Amino acid sequence: MNVPTELAPKTVAASIVREQVYMVFPNDLNSNDTVFGGMIMAHMDRLAAVVADRHAGGVTVTVSVDAVHFMLPARRGDVLVMHAAVNRAWRSSMEVGVKVEAECIGGGKRRHILSAYLTFVAVDADGKPRPVPPLLAETADEKRRYAEAELRRASRLQHAEDLKRLRAQSGG
Amino acid sequence: MNVPTELAPKTVAASIVREQVYMVFPNDLNSNDTVFGGMIMAHMDRLAAVVADRHAGGVTVTVSVDAVHFMLPARRGDVLVMHAAVNRAWRSSMEVGVKVEAECIGGGKRRHILSAYLTFVAVDADGKPRPVPPLLAETADEKRRYAEAELRRASRLQHAEDLKRLRAQSGG
Amino acid sequence: MNVPTELAPKTVAASIVREQVYMVFPNDLNSNDTVFGGMIMAHMDRLAAVVADRHAGGVTVTVSVDAVHFMLPARRGDVLVMHAAVNRAWRSSMEVGVKVEAECIGGGKRRHILSAYLTFVAVDADGKPRPVPPLLAETADEKRRYAEAELRRASRLQHAEDLKRLRAQSGG
Amino acid sequence: MNVPTELAPKTVAASIVREQVYMVFPNDLNSNDTVFGGMIMAHMDRLAAVVADRHAGGVTVTVSVDAVHFMLPARRGDVLVMHAAVNRAWRSSMEVGVKVEAECIGGGKRRHILSAYLTFVAVDADGKPRPVPPLLAETADEKRRYAEAELRRASRLQHAEDLKRLRAQSGG
Amino acid sequence: MNVPTELAPKTVAASIVREQVYMVFPNDLNSNDTVFGGMIMAHMDRLAAVVADRHAGGVTVTVSVDAVHFMLPARRGDVLVMHAAVNRAWRSSMEVGVKVEAECIGGGKRRHILSAYLTFVAVDADGKPRPVPPLLAETADEKRRYAEAELRRASRLQHAEDLKRLRAQSGG
Amino acid sequence: MNVPTELAPKTVAASIVREQVYMVFPNDLNSNDTVFGGMIMAHMDRLAAVVADRHAGGVTVTVSVDAVHFMLPARRGDVLVMHAAVNRAWRSSMEVGVKVEAECIGGGKRRHILSAYLTFVAVDADGKPRPVPPLLAETADEKRRYAEAELRRASRLQHAEDLKRLRAQSGG
Repeated sequence: MNVPTELAPKTVAASIVREQVYMVFPNDLNSNDTVFGGMIMAHMDRLAAVVADRHAGGVTVTVSVDAVHFMLPARRGDVLVMHAAVNRAWRSSMEVGVKVEAECIGGGKRRHILSAYLTFVAVDADGKPRPVPPLLAETADEKRRYAEAELRRASRLQHAEDLKRLRAQSGG
Repeated sequence: MNVPTELAPKTVAASIVREQVYMVFPNDLNSNDTVFGGMIMAHMDRLAAVVADRHAGGVTVTVSVDAVHFMLPARRGDVLVMHAAVNRAWRSSMEVGVKVEAECIGGGKRRHILSAYLTFVAVDADGKPRPVPPLLAETADEKRRYAEAELRRASRLQHAEDLKRLRAQSGG
Repeated sequence: MNVPTELAPKTVAASIVREQVYMVFPNDLNSNDTVFGGMIMAHMDRLAAVVADRHAGGVTVTVSVDAVHFMLPARRGDVLVMHAAVNRAWRSSMEVGVKVEAECIGGGKRRHILSAYLTFVAVDADGKPRPVPPLLAETADEKRRYAEAELRRASRLQHAEDLKRLRAQSGG
Repeated sequence: MNVPTELAPKTVAASIVREQVYMVFPNDLNSNDTVFGGMIMAHMDRLAAVVADRHAGGVTVTVSVDAVHFMLPARRGDVLVMHAAVNRAWRSSMEVGVKVEAECIGGGKRRHILSAYLTFVAVDADGKPRPVPPLLAETADEKRRYAEAELRRASRLQHAEDLKRLRAQSGG
Repeated sequence: MNVPTELAPKTVAASIVREQVYMVFPNDLNSNDTVFGGMIMAHMDRLAAVVADRHAGGVTVTVSVDAVHFMLPARRGDVLVMHAAVNRAWRSSMEVGVKVEAECIGGGKRRHILSAYLTFVAVDADGKPRPVPPLLAETADEKRRYAEAELRRASRLQHAEDLKRLRAQSGG
Repeated sequence: MNVPTELAPKTVAASIVREQVYMVFPNDLNSNDTVFGGMIMAHMDRLAAVVADRHAGGVTVTVSVDAVHFMLPARRGDVLVMHAAVNRAWRSSMEVGVKVEAECIGGGKRRHILSAYLTFVAVDADGKPRPVPPLLAETADEKRRYAEAELRRASRLQHAEDLKRLRAQSGG
């Protein structure tokens, strides 16, 4: 019998990418010379997918991305510095947190560009969800993120309920 | 004196893009042959920016993207069909709603891939926020989206509060 | 017996794309800061192929592109606005007309960049031509384009004859 | 006084590119596994621009592309082999002919994919047309192409006249 | 007076990138379904430049790349895992070592694809070489790489001499 | 019995590409407005692969790239002009030499950017090495390159020996 919780737990460290760099190139820029937001989202998804694949031990697909707030712009001459780790795993889904900072060429002080939370689901050869290992949160930071991940999940479900009710009322 | 509400209101129709198509190409595919989620996010941001720029009458920047749920995968041989419109405008920000569907080559029934809500801020030459015209919601659908946009904004603010409180409690 | 004209006619509206937008990015620019003509041709072909595929109900291939005249340059800070529709369908081929305009970021007056006429042929799984539905031209504009499409076809055939004759004379 | 014909003539050989190769990559393929026509047009324009720039001794812009006929498809595993040369120069414009062939990886027999004729205009720093050197057609082939180029130019003008008359008749 | 050796030394750790990941996408593949070598070289150069820029505290340019040996192929479904660090700094130049490994999606055993040594020179606003900080090699591994870097430099100079002599002999 | 030397020799001319041009585009530029070295390496590898494939009569893979020295920078407004030829063939491997020059738009004097030597191995359907034809060096230049290729091969082997010894001494 397939009992998914029998899967051996994996640590955060087993799949983390601590520092992924990306030198901004001309084509990444909007006409106001700041980095195109969608380009950053594409990079963060691609990085998060590598981390989710490692935790799941195979192919995963992005099923949702929580709200993304762009706090500061990135510009030409910047290097994006990204960090991605699994925050929590459920039966077949995982939340991956990504932090994106920017540093000038030559390094120095980093500015926080955005933090994002992406949910991935592990899939088998037929594209059906399959179980993933439990996550072992070890450090204080990892445990805080583990707790926050559940809060975000609840908030998503509540938000979906609110929208459904509004739509029912408005007949939309 | 600069009184932004003096800006003449604009209709949804003045900036809408009703049907933007994108034929999926091999490099858009993940190793499980479905379209890479980050690529779809980059396309939706780029389209939404055109719509926001039109409403603002000038350059805007993406400041946030609400939760994105990928409902169904898109594949090779699909055409993505996107629709983007301003849902609501505040002082210098706007919410743009994007709907992404997929149809097989040759057309036919469309599958709903995702709906997303992006917030843009109009900026002047120094990158400072500048006022945008009020939005004139005319049809029943436009009025419903106008109402929902305010709900999403409240939900975002509440969500931010919840996270702050959790962080304070956990000392994170 | 295969009687292609039994295929139910389709309207122009069934396959049209009325407004496809493309925000110009730095890499689209030549060294004189105008948009690279070949890039516009690649976009127009990709859009026209979606429209042809819809009319044909399946895969088509570009077999020819009529003369393209670049009337005005597009620049950085512009958005290309494209429109594509089937003008006429013959046994297994279709003419698709594409109009490309440019508007400044923020919208406003559009400049006519080019109009192009592309011919596509519907192909089956072996790459052999297969019949396409007749086109139903409904409006006055659609009927004018329907007539002009035949003229363009005749002009292409005449032009090919002229070249053959010249080559025969010159022994080329 | 500016007398453009004082510019020293240049030979065809001074600007020609005899063999430009491009190995087809996965993203160049349509969903029926043949090379996307628009991609080939983008390559041919980019190559022709280098040749026109050389003849003009500076920046040129594509002003028109004559009818392009795709004679055979190119596929994955093919290498595109392109050839481009100035066929004729007028006051400030030039016709560049491009021939595109395909060979399998490993070389061997080439298939003729298309021949195209592009017109470029030399521009000064303000984007205004500026004179180009006369072309010196030396070989029999070069002289034949020189003659055909004038025929194509006449055909373009006639074609434009025909369309104008049709439009006037139809009130379009 | 400008005395470059007064620049405070920097450690290897101050500029290192320990784990840069890149998920292979379809367009990275050659027609025999292995990753295109040139694509890997472009990635390694881009990563090494970030590391060199950090050590130099500003813009650097690639001046040479030592011999690169592709030991094993990378394929679709692989993730490239790259590591880059400064091995040694001289007056205005630095050697950066890059190691590229591949792991299957889902992680697991890594295969060594290549190791490369790139030399960068720090440049000022006029593109002239400018001094860089000395490198502080701390660990045993860092000290070994520091020594090997000098050997590689000597080998490059010797190799250049050999070629010059051969050319003189052959009159080439 | 498979006797590879029975393969008919091929001349250098049978696979050479004498002049491959590439107009520099904005996204090829680093933040100091010179062409990204890795981009040039990707182009040279892609061109050399076409030449190696032709000599081998089928698929080859890059196994090594000798030291590359960037002698002068290329900039926006430049056209890269590349030349690639087989220098020598051994049992299943070949050395391809690539020379990259840059000319300003409009042509004129060329600057030597780099020369590179790449080694390719011909592979069969299982990815195993397979024999390639001997190379027929005909001209004085071809014969000089044929001789130098053997020297470079010896230098590579010597260099590998030196490194091994150093590693053994340092226990690395």
